[in-house]
Amino acid sequence: MIFVYLPQSFTNMNSKELFDKISAKRSFLCVGLDSEFGKIPEFLKREQNPVFEFNKRIIDATAPYAVAFKPNLAFYEAYGVSGWVNLRMTVDYLRANYPDLFLIADAKRGDIGNTSKMYAKAFFDTIGFDAITVSPYMGEDSVKPFIGYKDKWTIILALTSNQGASSFQFTEDKFNGLMLFEKVINYSKNWGNKDNIMYVVGANRADLLKDVRRLAPDHFLLIPGVGAQGGDLAEIANTGMNDQCGLLVNSSRAIIFADSSEKFAETAARKAMEIQQEMAYLLTEKGIIR
Amino acid sequence: MIFVYLPQSFTNMNSKELFDKISAKRSFLCVGLDSEFGKIPEFLKREQNPVFEFNKRIIDATAPYAVAFKPNLAFYEAYGVSGWVNLRMTVDYLRANYPDLFLIADAKRGDIGNTSKMYAKAFFDTIGFDAITVSPYMGEDSVKPFIGYKDKWTIILALTSNQGASSFQFTEDKFNGLMLFEKVINYSKNWGNKDNIMYVVGANRADLLKDVRRLAPDHFLLIPGVGAQGGDLAEIANTGMNDQCGLLVNSSRAIIFADSSEKFAETAARKAMEIQQEMAYLLTEKGIIR
Repeated sequence: MIFVYLPQSFTNMNSKELFDKISAKRSFLCVGLDSEFGKIPEFLKREQNPVFEFNKRIIDATAPYAVAFKPNLAFYEAYGVSGWVNLRMTVDYLRANYPDLFLIADAKRGDIGNTSKMYAKAFFDTIGFDAITVSPYMGEDSVKPFIGYKDKWTIILALTSNQGASSFQFTEDKFNGLMLFEKVINYSKNWGNKDNIMYVVGANRADLLKDVRRLAPDHFLLIPGVGAQGGDLAEIANTGMNDQCGLLVNSSRAIIFADSSEKFAETAARKAMEIQQEMAYLLTEKGIIR
Repeated sequence: MIFVYLPQSFTNMNSKELFDKISAKRSFLCVGLDSEFGKIPEFLKREQNPVFEFNKRIIDATAPYAVAFKPNLAFYEAYGVSGWVNLRMTVDYLRANYPDLFLIADAKRGDIGNTSKMYAKAFFDTIGFDAITVSPYMGEDSVKPFIGYKDKWTIILALTSNQGASSFQFTEDKFNGLMLFEKVINYSKNWGNKDNIMYVVGANRADLLKDVRRLAPDHFLLIPGVGAQGGDLAEIANTGMNDQCGLLVNSSRAIIFADSSEKFAETAARKAMEIQQEMAYLLTEKGIIR
């Protein structure tokens, strides 16, 4: 085991270049690789690195319809060292075969400054992601080491899609009337700019997307929790899009676990294509692309 | 690479048993294994698994003076797969040789329910920690999967020791006047009990420890950021102790990186012993132990 790593090749996308990819692919789809070992098709479990073999097939099937891929770290860490091996193989495979894709580590990290710096090194240098999701609870100096990475993106949790979001994210600040998720956006947008910060906003909060857009008109938003339902997507596009699209919409289980048979990859491709077609329609309808 | 793991041996400590260990060792010291590869002594860097070799020597030197050890995940993840190998070896070594120690994964995780469940599996089952630190930003259903693990502890970030803590943790709730860190404690203490929940409270916030103690009189607090300074420790003990001690005080760099020579382990032992002696004095002075 050697402690030397070379930085991976970089995608180096700013917001303009990300929009160019979206325009070219007529898609703002992010495929979530929440590749839980227990849920992958049985026949793959006999492979040497089953999760990687699953991801490889999902990537090949869905890459034509997506601009981004987002492994969620929990599903890899759950299997310890071999989970990290499969994660590393997945990212290396994506980089080697699809260098234009935007790669997000859904890791929700955040710690004191010198520690966040090590997490940034882990995900940006050692593994070579373009972006990482970060929890804002510990504040400015816990987030800035990520933002300080040249040509990399920090995706800050603002309003999450789970029921528990209401525990603390709607806390109304006595002094300025902002809810915590609004305060997070309002403060943190000055820690970087629209070329290195995005926000996570839950797909089931389309009514609140307007508030988010008022505070961050130019930033990209990463929207998790969308299925293949065109309705939800249309609602999100209506309230959340800006003139550079400004959205990455993620779908995980609705694509990757739509089918557990040997034909899972074909089904995943079809699901991804359906979403992409809806996205192409919305992008055209709003005059964002031709 | 095989995807089968056996659960590690459990320490299975409730708060009473943790207090018994503290009484027996006359110490409430947690040694933080923030074992950054770049900072370990040069002669160890030639080893096959340098971080493990460093940790092993630190553990052997300081275990007599400590009740808990706390690797911070960032310093392992920064080196990808080999980092996780070194983490795994470290935990296995601790379990095999010091089965009475309380092992904390300083990971600051938290995600939607099904994802937090996978993080809980990673740190409690796959690696075999007794406790994990968790960020509360995503709320109740992001924290409960950790609390639901039998005989395991969830250590929730309340008031952190970094400067950025003031970005959001002091947000005053318009409706109940509680600051966010107080609200986190007030809500979350009902998600479990004093035998499965602790709180992180920064060592430099001794003045606010009284507020924390009012809200959570019986819970253990994990206090990071203490050096070998008796003064700070006395202040924390004065405001933060309860009649079962109720504190785990962590020291990382002040112990493990006190000396970069070949004698680093001896120096670490001396630093740990100095803190333990101060702790024994404080425990006796307050009549908590004889």
